[in-house]
Amino acid sequence: MGARVIVSLLFLFLIFGSNADAANKRIRDRRPCKRLVFFFHDVLYNGNNAKNATSAIIGAPAWANQTILAGQSHFGDLVVFDDPITLDNNLHSKPVGRAQGFYIYDKKDIFTAWLGFSFVFNSTQHTGSLNFAGADPLMNKTRDISVIGGTGDFFMARGVATLMTDSFEGEVYFRLRTDIKLYECW
Amino acid sequence: MGARVIVSLLFLFLIFGSNADAANKRIRDRRPCKRLVFFFHDVLYNGNNAKNATSAIIGAPAWANQTILAGQSHFGDLVVFDDPITLDNNLHSKPVGRAQGFYIYDKKDIFTAWLGFSFVFNSTQHTGSLNFAGADPLMNKTRDISVIGGTGDFFMARGVATLMTDSFEGEVYFRLRTDIKLYECW
Amino acid sequence: MGARVIVSLLFLFLIFGSNADAANKRIRDRRPCKRLVFFFHDVLYNGNNAKNATSAIIGAPAWANQTILAGQSHFGDLVVFDDPITLDNNLHSKPVGRAQGFYIYDKKDIFTAWLGFSFVFNSTQHTGSLNFAGADPLMNKTRDISVIGGTGDFFMARGVATLMTDSFEGEVYFRLRTDIKLYECW
Repeated sequence: MGARVIVSLLFLFLIFGSNADAANKRIRDRRPCKRLVFFFHDVLYNGNNAKNATSAIIGAPAWANQTILAGQSHFGDLVVFDDPITLDNNLHSKPVGRAQGFYIYDKKDIFTAWLGFSFVFNSTQHTGSLNFAGADPLMNKTRDISVIGGTGDFFMARGVATLMTDSFEGEVYFRLRTDIKLYECW
Repeated sequence: MGARVIVSLLFLFLIFGSNADAANKRIRDRRPCKRLVFFFHDVLYNGNNAKNATSAIIGAPAWANQTILAGQSHFGDLVVFDDPITLDNNLHSKPVGRAQGFYIYDKKDIFTAWLGFSFVFNSTQHTGSLNFAGADPLMNKTRDISVIGGTGDFFMARGVATLMTDSFEGEVYFRLRTDIKLYECW
Repeated sequence: MGARVIVSLLFLFLIFGSNADAANKRIRDRRPCKRLVFFFHDVLYNGNNAKNATSAIIGAPAWANQTILAGQSHFGDLVVFDDPITLDNNLHSKPVGRAQGFYIYDKKDIFTAWLGFSFVFNSTQHTGSLNFAGADPLMNKTRDISVIGGTGDFFMARGVATLMTDSFEGEVYFRLRTDIKLYECW
């Protein structure tokens, strides 16, 4: 009988008390519920590679133009991209999707960018999309951005993606390794 | 007495155990907690419609300009917009808010865009805003983007919005149906 | 024995029943789990202040350019920024981080912008980043945007940030007070 009272109180507490608190204060599990690693490959248009280019400058400051990356760490260059995503680091591997969006070089004295983009999957393994946003201080070995949402197989996903410049050639080719850790899976 | 021990253990488990797990692994309800359908209307500036235009090209690749949409599926065109939102598909219905933000055409061989924008409401029905981001492969009948946050009546909202091109006239007028499904409501 | 049955039922209910519903419908706590106030300082390039400027126009409509803010409420101007963040309202205080990203003036008849940016912290107090997106109707005394994610000390954060124009000088200097209220803390 006493136990039943405790159970009832516990029950009431759970429904009206801890759930409200839990929303903000609960101890959360920092182990990812899903983890995925991909590479994507950016070939920037430089005036001579129209056929192969997967990205292009579309905004630039008053002192620059849309063909040549600006001085001062490319500050002010806005680049749009549609890059192939591969499972390994080979540009010529069969793409599993496209990385689509933009980056803006946003600092004068060091290479840093702001990223807004999606991974759009259309393979036997994955369909749907993951959306990303965040700061990319690209001289750092690794840098974390946010997974701000997802659709399809990645419905309502949230998490963190760790970017790493896996390789680059001059100012034309960049390969980014993306280690995606989702902490909210539906 | 035995029951009380079980209750206590259960209690401890709930506080320190399952809540942490629950954060990532709990079974979630895929029924929307709120659903809303709106239309928004984009009239793109083309050099001759300054008065009626609700959007304009503000970034373009080296081979294009800010008045005429670029070739190659408009790849590289950045468009800013401030479009009226209506409850039905009539451009002249009383707007309930404004769709404000940008899209970038991001693919050379097919029409695809990346969207970042907000619905800003100021009507008797809704005040506040919903923020969106995601890929828009606009040749698909429907495409899903993420609701990445909200304010006011839509405080802390998250969800998925399904876009559908409801109508278009040449390259000037586009009407988008937006079916918003929120799965996190506060 | 009866109590143990109740406990068991309660347990099953918690695991398979209420958790699923709770995801969407639980009563949530609208008190922030973390609150932070910062100022950031934007000095816009105007052709004569290259040394001090922390931001620059990098996209503009057909009728404007990248040096002078456009007419019609700057409609169509895209600005990239890398602004110092301070704890008080003094531009010359030691910065605790940088506000990096962009805004686009998106309305012809009133000053309104769309923001996508990050606070990147690198101080003894905070490391990591907070990512923001939303509409900024900047003639309003205060306006709310979304905290769409975070990394490092702000791992997986979500919330609302209230912006207030704390001061401005002509069209060159803007100081924004940012009152950050996080409602999801991990």
